[in-house]
Amino acid sequence: MNILVINGPNLNLLGVREPGIYGSQGFDSYLQELREKYSDRQIEYFQSNHEGAIIDKLHEVGFGDYGVVLNAGAYTHTSVAIADAISAIKAPVIEVHISNVMRREEFRHHSYISPVCVGTIAGFGLDSYRLGVEALLRIEKKSL
Amino acid sequence: MNILVINGPNLNLLGVREPGIYGSQGFDSYLQELREKYSDRQIEYFQSNHEGAIIDKLHEVGFGDYGVVLNAGAYTHTSVAIADAISAIKAPVIEVHISNVMRREEFRHHSYISPVCVGTIAGFGLDSYRLGVEALLRIEKKSL
Amino acid sequence: MNILVINGPNLNLLGVREPGIYGSQGFDSYLQELREKYSDRQIEYFQSNHEGAIIDKLHEVGFGDYGVVLNAGAYTHTSVAIADAISAIKAPVIEVHISNVMRREEFRHHSYISPVCVGTIAGFGLDSYRLGVEALLRIEKKSL
Amino acid sequence: MNILVINGPNLNLLGVREPGIYGSQGFDSYLQELREKYSDRQIEYFQSNHEGAIIDKLHEVGFGDYGVVLNAGAYTHTSVAIADAISAIKAPVIEVHISNVMRREEFRHHSYISPVCVGTIAGFGLDSYRLGVEALLRIEKKSL
Amino acid sequence: MNILVINGPNLNLLGVREPGIYGSQGFDSYLQELREKYSDRQIEYFQSNHEGAIIDKLHEVGFGDYGVVLNAGAYTHTSVAIADAISAIKAPVIEVHISNVMRREEFRHHSYISPVCVGTIAGFGLDSYRLGVEALLRIEKKSL
Amino acid sequence: MNILVINGPNLNLLGVREPGIYGSQGFDSYLQELREKYSDRQIEYFQSNHEGAIIDKLHEVGFGDYGVVLNAGAYTHTSVAIADAISAIKAPVIEVHISNVMRREEFRHHSYISPVCVGTIAGFGLDSYRLGVEALLRIEKKSL
Amino acid sequence: MNILVINGPNLNLLGVREPGIYGSQGFDSYLQELREKYSDRQIEYFQSNHEGAIIDKLHEVGFGDYGVVLNAGAYTHTSVAIADAISAIKAPVIEVHISNVMRREEFRHHSYISPVCVGTIAGFGLDSYRLGVEALLRIEKKSL
Amino acid sequence: MNILVINGPNLNLLGVREPGIYGSQGFDSYLQELREKYSDRQIEYFQSNHEGAIIDKLHEVGFGDYGVVLNAGAYTHTSVAIADAISAIKAPVIEVHISNVMRREEFRHHSYISPVCVGTIAGFGLDSYRLGVEALLRIEKKSL
Amino acid sequence: MNILVINGPNLNLLGVREPGIYGSQGFDSYLQELREKYSDRQIEYFQSNHEGAIIDKLHEVGFGDYGVVLNAGAYTHTSVAIADAISAIKAPVIEVHISNVMRREEFRHHSYISPVCVGTIAGFGLDSYRLGVEALLRIEKKSL
Amino acid sequence: MNILVINGPNLNLLGVREPGIYGSQGFDSYLQELREKYSDRQIEYFQSNHEGAIIDKLHEVGFGDYGVVLNAGAYTHTSVAIADAISAIKAPVIEVHISNVMRREEFRHHSYISPVCVGTIAGFGLDSYRLGVEALLRIEKKSL
Amino acid sequence: MNILVINGPNLNLLGVREPGIYGSQGFDSYLQELREKYSDRQIEYFQSNHEGAIIDKLHEVGFGDYGVVLNAGAYTHTSVAIADAISAIKAPVIEVHISNVMRREEFRHHSYISPVCVGTIAGFGLDSYRLGVEALLRIEKKSL
Amino acid sequence: MNILVINGPNLNLLGVREPGIYGSQGFDSYLQELREKYSDRQIEYFQSNHEGAIIDKLHEVGFGDYGVVLNAGAYTHTSVAIADAISAIKAPVIEVHISNVMRREEFRHHSYISPVCVGTIAGFGLDSYRLGVEALLRIEKKSL
Repeated sequence: MNILVINGPNLNLLGVREPGIYGSQGFDSYLQELREKYSDRQIEYFQSNHEGAIIDKLHEVGFGDYGVVLNAGAYTHTSVAIADAISAIKAPVIEVHISNVMRREEFRHHSYISPVCVGTIAGFGLDSYRLGVEALLRIEKKSL
Repeated sequence: MNILVINGPNLNLLGVREPGIYGSQGFDSYLQELREKYSDRQIEYFQSNHEGAIIDKLHEVGFGDYGVVLNAGAYTHTSVAIADAISAIKAPVIEVHISNVMRREEFRHHSYISPVCVGTIAGFGLDSYRLGVEALLRIEKKSL
Repeated sequence: MNILVINGPNLNLLGVREPGIYGSQGFDSYLQELREKYSDRQIEYFQSNHEGAIIDKLHEVGFGDYGVVLNAGAYTHTSVAIADAISAIKAPVIEVHISNVMRREEFRHHSYISPVCVGTIAGFGLDSYRLGVEALLRIEKKSL
Repeated sequence: MNILVINGPNLNLLGVREPGIYGSQGFDSYLQELREKYSDRQIEYFQSNHEGAIIDKLHEVGFGDYGVVLNAGAYTHTSVAIADAISAIKAPVIEVHISNVMRREEFRHHSYISPVCVGTIAGFGLDSYRLGVEALLRIEKKSL
Repeated sequence: MNILVINGPNLNLLGVREPGIYGSQGFDSYLQELREKYSDRQIEYFQSNHEGAIIDKLHEVGFGDYGVVLNAGAYTHTSVAIADAISAIKAPVIEVHISNVMRREEFRHHSYISPVCVGTIAGFGLDSYRLGVEALLRIEKKSL
Repeated sequence: MNILVINGPNLNLLGVREPGIYGSQGFDSYLQELREKYSDRQIEYFQSNHEGAIIDKLHEVGFGDYGVVLNAGAYTHTSVAIADAISAIKAPVIEVHISNVMRREEFRHHSYISPVCVGTIAGFGLDSYRLGVEALLRIEKKSL
Repeated sequence: MNILVINGPNLNLLGVREPGIYGSQGFDSYLQELREKYSDRQIEYFQSNHEGAIIDKLHEVGFGDYGVVLNAGAYTHTSVAIADAISAIKAPVIEVHISNVMRREEFRHHSYISPVCVGTIAGFGLDSYRLGVEALLRIEKKSL
Repeated sequence: MNILVINGPNLNLLGVREPGIYGSQGFDSYLQELREKYSDRQIEYFQSNHEGAIIDKLHEVGFGDYGVVLNAGAYTHTSVAIADAISAIKAPVIEVHISNVMRREEFRHHSYISPVCVGTIAGFGLDSYRLGVEALLRIEKKSL
Repeated sequence: MNILVINGPNLNLLGVREPGIYGSQGFDSYLQELREKYSDRQIEYFQSNHEGAIIDKLHEVGFGDYGVVLNAGAYTHTSVAIADAISAIKAPVIEVHISNVMRREEFRHHSYISPVCVGTIAGFGLDSYRLGVEALLRIEKKSL
Repeated sequence: MNILVINGPNLNLLGVREPGIYGSQGFDSYLQELREKYSDRQIEYFQSNHEGAIIDKLHEVGFGDYGVVLNAGAYTHTSVAIADAISAIKAPVIEVHISNVMRREEFRHHSYISPVCVGTIAGFGLDSYRLGVEALLRIEKKSL
Repeated sequence: MNILVINGPNLNLLGVREPGIYGSQGFDSYLQELREKYSDRQIEYFQSNHEGAIIDKLHEVGFGDYGVVLNAGAYTHTSVAIADAISAIKAPVIEVHISNVMRREEFRHHSYISPVCVGTIAGFGLDSYRLGVEALLRIEKKSL
Repeated sequence: MNILVINGPNLNLLGVREPGIYGSQGFDSYLQELREKYSDRQIEYFQSNHEGAIIDKLHEVGFGDYGVVLNAGAYTHTSVAIADAISAIKAPVIEVHISNVMRREEFRHHSYISPVCVGTIAGFGLDSYRLGVEALLRIEKKSL
């Protein structure tokens, strides 16, 4: 199983954007750490601020041998279309969030994406992504 | 009047995606049937997973001699911007849905698009598109 | 398959009642047009202002070889009992509306009947009934 | 400080679209007036119907010496992602609307963008943009 | 102008039903008083527990020279169909209630009928009917 | 005390209608069992799909020596008028339901009738009626 | 019983203010008509735009031999304090409105004052005041 | 099948607590009557004011040959945990209430427990328990 | 056109009250600046903590040659009466706020006044008033 | 610290108004008792039915050496303006109520004033004022 | 009258738990002060994190000569069962809170306990308990 | 750091209870696997159906060198008291769920506990606990 990490809108600014909430490490350096830790795996990466581009990407990999770790950012709370894409594909998708969204504004408490993902991991900073990869590996093992 | 069928997000996966809800026929083969039935008409087709691209397309045809059959998919429930595009153009737009959306999740019961379309046809499988074309032809006849 | 068109409360006043919303053609003359167009079919007609009478009628035909085109008028928004009748019978029921109900008062946006009908057609003036008949014929064809 | 005016979805149709609400002057001719009035300033212009493109643009200018006058159109009411982009950048953003949105449909009364902008100006026709520029110049002056 | 007083469900039990709320005088004896007071007028009376029968009656008189004083009882709070009948007819309809409905259960605070009637009179016991007749006479005078 | 069992809309279809919810025994055969079990009692039966007819029946028996077992079906959730009839009469009324309504659609969770009945019995299939009769007999015993 | 007519905020502008809603007759000329019609009565008049002044006035007359016809205008929908004043005094108060408030904005559908008044009369133009006086005279007669 | 009657919080005060709502008979004397009536059965009894203790008890008997008559008192309205316990066990559970809860405060109208019980009996005073036992015996008979 | 600036409740404490929200400049010194900037205009000023006094003032100037810049303070969120006064008069009214009200408590997000004003300016500190004056001058120019 | 007791609308009628809720002692005689008990203190008193006058009074004393015991009566539930005045001043304010407002109508359950007062005391009859004074004295002692 | 102070969940951590909200004094030392101040009284103390244990305690003392000062902590907002216990017993119960709960999270604004207690005291730190004792002594004095 | 796993109500039935939702492995055998995997750690275990007992346990370990993995089961959705306990202690707490709660009933979508935990892991079956332990180890590492 290849692993694809997808980051949604504004997550290209990690390390720059509101460090009080999202931390000060850029995603590039974190991704390198992640790839080193799971060096026997292909970890691909995709970021876009476009809802449609995220859907296109999910369609592209969703019928192949992939597991997806998805931080849909703000689209988590507004995109029925991404949720439908997740339902439509075969690949397992894990929802992750850097911050504890339940501590933030009311409108961030609802996720269209949670019910169609395998599961959710939120609040552990960048470590949420690593836990997402861990969860995918376990799912792969069970389905073998 | 030329006819344009627009399909919104995830409808490129018809025949593949959740066949229990959307059926197992791909849209290409259906489109061919439709074109054969209305062979005296130009039936154009556009699909995109991008909200903005659907708006661009509506602007492009909306001031010409067109009638639009629109299945906006998930954007039906979230896009004020597509609804505004429909209000802004001159071409009549018919809202169609393959499934009976009122039997599905609560958030699919609301459509931003219904009040600005001529009318709505939902629940007849792919036949909803044909009924949409029928409705457009009748509108054309009345306005001649 | 015989076809039964049912009109609910106040639809006996079509052509007289609020022509800005419902148009100025009476239902009798429209029905004649419809019967001419589908002259190979028996198209029966029933109108009542009584919720109970509509239920009685649905029970009467609902286990025979019938398809129903139903405009339940105001009972669309208030009658759980008619919705239950539709669930209880075997005949397919198509919900139709003359006006685009989603452009009207908030309380007309909810339909108890939509989730138990095959599908919904709304907003095409009297042509909604013809589209309803079309939809029934297609359903019949598929089930043969 | 350079000034960037961003127009969101359907605002490319100004002068054509619903003149009763948006007026009959196209934005191009208005922009020219604006540039003449503030001829000592660079006034850039960007319009897109794509939510993601607006985010990309905000990221592009948001860490430079810019002030932004933003009419996010329909995305005002639905886009958490644009609001997050505004929070993430350093440049001050002023929210403007041509019409008095509080007189229009209920769903236009809520703005995701207002709480993250410096302030809001709504209801003055195209003059809302000029007042937005005025406000930016004052902010610049105070922060010098 | 002839006057028709319509009483809805359970109002046949006046004088017997919950005298603490509705008083102990039967409607027959009150009607006689009313007819004596307005002896130069034809005051007709209709009572039914059937929603459909009230609609039928409104249709019957609604296009003639009638003014209607309507106490729709419980249907006030649940019947869109009676409200639609009032909208559809030409005759002026006055809504009356014996008790002050705003002091009673929450679900009695909403009336589907108020917005389509000329006006509302509530809380004066049986005298509400007399005030309704008074109001009709004034309306007649103005329109002469 | 005579006993009157009233069945509301669609309950004439018991045994035919959605057997997964309502079971496959017709009400006639059940009624015979009930009458045999309580052979020292007069058990009358009334079914109607008309809200008004149920009200008329309640008025007819409600001031005599009767106890009523009422399954108001769908009118349970929509009829203020039947609730008012129950309040208006003297006879005790027991609300019964065949299915466990709280497991079904949200709109079936509210009963206008519960607060004005002596009590409620729901979820025991046709046995709910027998328990209703039992409850009435106990009430009679206490009030002797 | 003396009669006091109280008009709340903006009702001093009657005849000038939004004639489409409130008519074009000033209140002074109407008051004169009213006094002529009930010439055997003292009809006092008080108007204020101040919530507190209306409360002071209600206290002043509320323990004497007075009946009050009150059009509280906008305070109808916002003033718990005026409602409490009405509860606190002994004099009967009749709520009147010129327009049919149930046809207007949602926030005008709620009245804090209705439940503490004897009854409500709304929608008859200035004639609502006369009907209010009529109702007071009847109340006086009954309590003699 | 053994029968276990469980009483929730404050029901140990029956006969003492608010006799207007709960009656003046203590539960002990009632229980004796019940045991006499069903002398061929083991009727066990458990009361606790502790949510956790009720769950423990349900677990203890829930996999044995038991039927449960449960009056969860105030926990009916607040305890997801007791509802989960009922779902988790095999034994049938009947929900009973002494008073007609639908006549009481709004917050007593919702029951977490109803949807997971076989059925509900409410409003018959202490006789609700006897009806609950009757219902259990019937269930036992059907499942034999 | 004369200009009248109206400040509502507690705005007499500007410079003293919560400087974190409202800044530390008193309104008197700001008003002087404003008058200097627009020295060719009469800029009148009125402040009151009394809802009724603000209404009286609006009536006083509202039919003359005036433009109003109104910061209704807390009455923005609670006063239907001030909103009605604005509707009733002829003079254009601009709503201004010092702080960005959409960042503050939920109850400050709703304005009764916005829909009846020409437009709204919020969040620019005291500069909001200057922008309000600018907007008025433009309106005057257009209507000349 | 001087103590100011403020009573809001209708509290001038204490002893006269609804004695079942507010008791039968007039406030004057109670105030005398209070002054005797705390004879070493200046206890001032202010009552008004005018929202604006209460704000004016709070401004007047709020920057001096005062503690305020405030029963805002009905304005508790509707006045953002009084709440803002309390926030704006320096003097500590204690909210008191004679009755237990949580037992009364729903709209009395919300207080705009509670979050900006030091604390709340409700339900102890006139003794609530004495407890308010006690609380102020303690606050003074702590801050010395 | 003996006095019982009951502290609910987490209040055993006073002085340790969130000192910014609850202060830094432990309850033991405060209790000693309280007992010294009211040395002629028996002041008992009970703390538990168990909802059921608080109910048991209320039952134990509630029929004796006791007054209760209750800080139910988090159970204030969720426990119908404790509220029912307070209703069921004879002893007067005073609700107290250390912090001003109305300034905290939305879910802390509702109290099940307020309507069944004599009154409420909130926001005065530990002094709230002393004021609660004061209130009880006054109640005792009045009932002697 | 020692690790404490806490399981809330009904989780003692794992392997027995609704295996479609919770799987068929008992928690004992899973715990053994977990302890083997993290054999260099002390992994303690606590299960209770009592809300109060969970709070007591959190207090007991919460000021020592512990990390907590908490599946609060049904108390997740109803217990403010457990949430307050988590806020009050020093030890980091991770919220875990076996099932994807967002796919289940509406009332399971809200968690009182999420905002006060470090983060949340849901939907991975028993593997959620292991991911929780992983997250704790990372937190420990960062804080060293």
